[in-house]
Parts: sequence; structure tokens; C-alpha cells
Amino acid sequence: MKLASLKQGRDGSLAVVSKDLTRFKVVADIAPTLQQALDNWDQCEPQLKAVYEQINASADHTQAFDVSLFHSPLPRAYQWADGSAYINHVELVRKARNAEVPESFYHDPLMYQGASDCFIAPTDPVVADPAWGIDFEAEVAVITGDLPQGATVEQAEKSIRLVMLVNDVSMRGLIPGELAKGFGFLQSKPASAFSPVAVTPDELGDSWQDNKLHLPLLVDLNHKPFGKPNAGVDMTFNFAQLVAHVAKTRTVCAGTIVGSGTVSNKQGNLWGSSIENGGVGYCCLAEVRMYETIEQGKPVTPFMQPGDVVRIDMQDKDGHSIFGVIENQVELFTPLA
Amino acid sequence: MKLASLKQGRDGSLAVVSKDLTRFKVVADIAPTLQQALDNWDQCEPQLKAVYEQINASADHTQAFDVSLFHSPLPRAYQWADGSAYINHVELVRKARNAEVPESFYHDPLMYQGASDCFIAPTDPVVADPAWGIDFEAEVAVITGDLPQGATVEQAEKSIRLVMLVNDVSMRGLIPGELAKGFGFLQSKPASAFSPVAVTPDELGDSWQDNKLHLPLLVDLNHKPFGKPNAGVDMTFNFAQLVAHVAKTRTVCAGTIVGSGTVSNKQGNLWGSSIENGGVGYCCLAEVRMYETIEQGKPVTPFMQPGDVVRIDMQDKDGHSIFGVIENQVELFTPLA
Repeated sequence: MKLASLKQGRDGSLAVVSKDLTRFKVVADIAPTLQQALDNWDQCEPQLKAVYEQINASADHTQAFDVSLFHSPLPRAYQWADGSAYINHVELVRKARNAEVPESFYHDPLMYQGASDCFIAPTDPVVADPAWGIDFEAEVAVITGDLPQGATVEQAEKSIRLVMLVNDVSMRGLIPGELAKGFGFLQSKPASAFSPVAVTPDELGDSWQDNKLHLPLLVDLNHKPFGKPNAGVDMTFNFAQLVAHVAKTRTVCAGTIVGSGTVSNKQGNLWGSSIENGGVGYCCLAEVRMYETIEQGKPVTPFMQPGDVVRIDMQDKDGHSIFGVIENQVELFTPLA
Repeated sequence: MKLASLKQGRDGSLAVVSKDLTRFKVVADIAPTLQQALDNWDQCEPQLKAVYEQINASADHTQAFDVSLFHSPLPRAYQWADGSAYINHVELVRKARNAEVPESFYHDPLMYQGASDCFIAPTDPVVADPAWGIDFEAEVAVITGDLPQGATVEQAEKSIRLVMLVNDVSMRGLIPGELAKGFGFLQSKPASAFSPVAVTPDELGDSWQDNKLHLPLLVDLNHKPFGKPNAGVDMTFNFAQLVAHVAKTRTVCAGTIVGSGTVSNKQGNLWGSSIENGGVGYCCLAEVRMYETIEQGKPVTPFMQPGDVVRIDMQDKDGHSIFGVIENQVELFTPLA
């Protein structure tokens, strides 16, 4: 089934969305918010599924789906932990500065704790100062149920309730300074935006296998194709492993969001990496800038500027959007007087 | 006024607690949970204050306060960002490994994004594996209201709604590996525990000045005094500065918790640092182990073992507990079969 949150109040109003993303129905009688549905999943899930079947069969009592009406599925969440499961992305970063990837990175997931108090809506602007080095990171993410401390990978797999897309907005200019301090990201990872619709894994059919989503992630920059790597390829850790990593030393609460990190496929021919050159392209600007650094000695592609737009989508085998689109335009941040 | 959350449901039930911590009254009619009160603070604050005055004046319609009934004021929160404002603590860590403190640390706060989906209650056990190097960190924390992106220090000051204590539970054995990966803490900072009661700054009288809490933080380890540094001394960044740091690149939502970092006072005579030697002692085991490393070449004091208890309290000038006590006993974590 497909779930979304109408822009209403701090947590949105839970809605069930039709499979073809044309209609939706508010289901306050089942659970007023997605968080409340996740808090009481065993009770709510069958009722939500019944509504999903109903609205797929008939347009009665539904409203027309319009992406601008929707917030991120969880407008605010109690946890957002983002992995970096596509090691190719990490290898590139290191290669661009002539550093090795530690061997441990291939068996111990890299992950950071992100801010989750105030996400931006799927089509809301990214308000930022271009001096911060504005970048996007197109990723896949899951929302979990409750998990005990020390949960196994098998338990983690069973806890995956929903799948969605995310733009993990990143301020590249602020990252080196923050990472040098040693405590990870804070100002350099402001609010992320999620796809308007989150779907249950069964909705993905055989594209969801081994706890990975085996479909191309489609990224357009300023209305031109920029990336289409397959999210199921070169993912070193699957979502069950990433979720289990979060649970190792503590209980994990329903509504926890765990991200894959920037989707990135290994590409043999560096110059062929861009879509123009027949490659699968990129899911962030940093990566093309790393290729440029490796090949030309310095980055050429600029970070996002006010007015620039990134669009993130994923389509089923028939070319229909699964999650609805994320489309964030950069808007100049004006400091308070 | 003094607020707390009864252990009920995932978010607790909001209660107003009498000034002397002997009685409380549930105020579901004003706001069912503390988060909801924070979400609607302007409306709820005067009503909560009226109840506070009422229960301070009369025991009618109140219940006896028992710390074991209460969860952390926010049993789960949308954001927990913990600073490291007592640079003495950082200087010691560096000195123990013969490293310098970067000059930037004196004007740019060090802060990490912590997990906030599932805090432990003030007197609940810390369930952990001693192999992880179990430590406590006694700190002060504030809860904020909403803040715009780029908020000034003055705006940040006005956003401080409540003050409380925290045990930022830390797994020292897991920290070096996680920090070496470069993305900060995740498994090494499991769930924190907060004092049962959170209080408005006005409740602290002239002990709350310059956005700092000028009182000794009292730490007992296994029922013996271990630390009593003054939280108002040697705090390089005050709470308004710490909150403004969080808001630099993004909107901050009501209910955000910002911590001070381990309270630590500079102590001239190293051997005199412990309470036994007439010093003010420590707010974490790591710090005494650093002193031992500097003075004796290696740490001697062990990390916490199953059965060990840490108690954290702060008293007003008349010796009465302000926030109620945090008392966490270590319990052996048994991995799932």
C-alpha cells in the first residue's frame, strides 16, 4: 500500500494514496498521523490495507492527488540515521584526495545521526546560502517499526514497514570543517526532503529483493537527466543490515528512518560516467566534482545556485512513478536582520 | 514551574510537579504530553503556571511524587543535539594523547546529533555490555521552542523553555572506532536518561545567569561523591550560543533538546582533582582516566560494571533537589539468541 501525509499541523494528516498516485483518502479514523499508525502498526495495517484496496477499485470518497498538498511522509521523526552503503561513493571521495578506503568500511556500515525535527516537504524549496556549497544526495530510505536492542539482521528485516526516496540536502562547504572537529555533521546536513509517498515493501514486487530496491533512481538537474544508477547495484550493506547497525547498542523506536546513503554505481570508464557520455550518471554534485578532480585536477561543475532545481523519482517497470517526485528548488537564504 | 511526564504510553502523560518535588498533578486537560505543550506553548504556558501556583499553595487534587513513576520529561524527542561546551573536558582528552586543542574550538561549538527516539527513564537501568566501556556523562540540557533558520543568539535565548539534567550514556570502547570512520557517534552514544523534572529558567532564580546554570552538579558513583563541579564555571559557550549553533542552517522545532556536554571545571592541581583530594571531582569516568593517563601513564579507574550505580542531582541553595535525581544502575546486556 501507499501512504502519505497531507500538509496539516506539525505531523500532517495520514492519507492512503492509490497505486497510480492519482487519488487519495484521508484516514483520520484509523490513525490521524503516520507516526500514530506506526506506533500501532499491527492494529492499523489491516485497516489501511482495506482502504488501499477500496480506493484502487473505486474513486468514490477520494480526492485528486496533487504533490504540492503533501509533506514528507513523516514531517518530523524521532530518528533519522543515514548510512553510506554505496561504497563507490566513499571510494571516489577518498580517491579524489589520494586516500585509501579503510578495510573495515566493507564490513562495518558508515552511518550518521541526522536531524529529524523538521523535514522539508517534497516540493518545498531548499533555503540556503550558496557560500555553504549546496548539494543534493538522492537516496532510498526505509521507515521501521519497534526493534529491541541488539536486534538481528532477520529481526531488522521484519521491522521494515515502508520504503521511500530522500534528498539528503548537504552543505559541502561546511562539511570539511565539521568533520575535522571529529563529531560528525550538524550544520552541514540541514533538513532533508522525502518523496511524498512511502510504500510497503510488498508494493515493490520483485524489485524489492535481499532488502534492496533494484530499480534506477532517476535524478534530473535543472530539467535535464543527471543520474540513473540502479539502487540495487553496488549496495554493500542492505537495509536490514543498516537497521541492525542502528539497533546494536539500543532499542529502536517505531518511525525510525534509515537511509541508504547516496546511490552510486561503480563505473569502469570514468569519462563515460555522465549520462551524456552513456554512463548512469550521479546522485549528487560532489561525485561528478570528484571525477573532475581525479581526471582534470580540479572540480568544474558548480554546486547548486538559487533557482537551480533537483528532481528525484523512481519508476516501476511500466514507467509510472512509484513514490511521487521530490523536486527542490534552491532559494537564497537571507539572514535575519 | 516544574514539569514531568508520567510513564504512560510512548510520550508519557504531562504532570505539573510542586516546587518541593513532593506532589504532582496530571494536566491532560491542558496538554496530554509535554511535546504537545511545547507545540502550543503560548497557549499552554499560562495554564500550566496557574496549576503550578495552585499545587504549591494546596495539596488538594495532587498525588505523591515518586521518581519511579516518571519517565524522562520527553520520553522521545524530535531532536537531541549535545554540545561539548566545557572545553576543559576536551583539553584533557587531547592532553591525554599529547594532542593540541584546535584554536577554533574556543569560538565554534563542538556538537553532535544524538539519538532521541527512545530515551531511558531517570531511574531505569543502563543495559549494556561491559566490553563496550560503559561511562556516564553528567550534563545540563535545555528544551527549546520553535526557532527560525539563522536565529540569533538573542532569539535562541528567548526560545529556551525548560532546563533539566542528563546522563549522556557513553560507550567509550566504541568511540575511537566510530570517530575514526569520520561520521561521529552512533552506536557509542545509546539512549540518554534525563532528570524526572524539567523546570522553567525563572524557577532557577539568580542561579540562571548569562544562559548558564551556576550551581554544582552533584555526581555520586556507587553511593560515594564523585563530582561536584559548578555548571556555571568554565562553560565556554552558553545555552543561547549552543542553540543558535543548531539553528544556523535550518529551522529548529519545538521540543529540541540541546545539551551542555560533560560539565568540567579547570583544576590547577591535577592530584587535587578528585573529591577525596579536596577537588571538585568529575562528571564522567573518562575524565579521571585521562588524569590518570597524564599522571601515571595509564588509566586505573575501570569503566562501569554491572551493578554499578551513577546518581546525578543538583540542589538549590537550601539543599533541596531542583530536578529530582537521575539514578542509573548498569545491567548486563544479554544478546538475543
